[in-house]
Amino acid sequence: MKKGRLFIVSGPSGVGKSTVLRALLAKRENARFSISATTRPMREGEKDGEDYHFVDVQTFREWIAEDDFLEYAEYVGNFYGTPKKFVRAALDAGQDIVLDIEIQGAMQVAERMPDAVKIFIGPPSWEELERRLTSRGTNTPEDIRKRLVRAKVEVRTARDYDYFVVNDAVENAVRELDAIMTAEHCKPIARMQLFAET
Amino acid sequence: MKKGRLFIVSGPSGVGKSTVLRALLAKRENARFSISATTRPMREGEKDGEDYHFVDVQTFREWIAEDDFLEYAEYVGNFYGTPKKFVRAALDAGQDIVLDIEIQGAMQVAERMPDAVKIFIGPPSWEELERRLTSRGTNTPEDIRKRLVRAKVEVRTARDYDYFVVNDAVENAVRELDAIMTAEHCKPIARMQLFAET
Repeated sequence: MKKGRLFIVSGPSGVGKSTVLRALLAKRENARFSISATTRPMREGEKDGEDYHFVDVQTFREWIAEDDFLEYAEYVGNFYGTPKKFVRAALDAGQDIVLDIEIQGAMQVAERMPDAVKIFIGPPSWEELERRLTSRGTNTPEDIRKRLVRAKVEVRTARDYDYFVVNDAVENAVRELDAIMTAEHCKPIARMQLFAET
Repeated sequence: MKKGRLFIVSGPSGVGKSTVLRALLAKRENARFSISATTRPMREGEKDGEDYHFVDVQTFREWIAEDDFLEYAEYVGNFYGTPKKFVRAALDAGQDIVLDIEIQGAMQVAERMPDAVKIFIGPPSWEELERRLTSRGTNTPEDIRKRLVRAKVEVRTARDYDYFVVNDAVENAVRELDAIMTAEHCKPIARMQLFAET
């Protein structure tokens, strides 16, 4: 049976990654987001197993001890992590999984899942990234400056990714991501295995 | 400036490669077939520089001596080869080049052009390949048997290719090849160079 692939997607703040990925997943019915586990309390309207897998701190720590995470991090006093078992079960069931994650997390996951496809989403230019960060209206000039400096560092790590998608326009970025996912399903190893089964 | 990419495409006799590649190139306006040089006489309706670069034997031998071919072979007393300069000029001008070539030639080209993308087109099954070879009506049963044996050997080399496209239906194969070409233009090295220029 055809297995799913894991796609790790990173990109600097303001690049428009969430918009692009939502549009991508609306297009590819066989792909879905990875669902993180977290120890933070469930918020109104959230569902366990849909928005997050909500677990208590003790469970989370046990999972860490049992090496059950592809990656995890602590943020503002809560734990967030990507549980191996959910990702593996989905891939085995033939689903593609998209993991929207920052660079350090991406590198952790890639080490544990060497077959994962690493995609970096970059802005068309620094000017455009600055414009997007400014247009949010929620960032102070100091915030924006810091985010731009960080983005420049992050883009340098893009050489460690398998693909670099430029989000000049959402439809272009989605078209490229869609092509990358299709192309990655044409890699010889999986295909030859299917072929041997005929 | 954005450079073109070289796509080497191989596949067993009867797999439907020519049909698929013609449909692919009709879809991608920035791609065209590589034009071979040959010493065989020009036929009625053929144009120099379109169907082939027609050259005399002395010129062909000089080009061999000067290492001007990505690959060449002799077939029924005539030489056929892929001239480096035409391919390089097209790639530098930003055109994608598709090289339809058998396995030995593909490996020769890949050695000289390590950035080339190697794509193998395979049949959905041996039964279907046999059916396609039979339906041509021009092959003897002995021909078909030999081509099938050869196809089975060739498919084993597909692991040395970057992609394995299954031609179960022309539109599926074209869709996958189209995705592969788009995805290959998202590789970080070229993209980051473009980015540095902004």
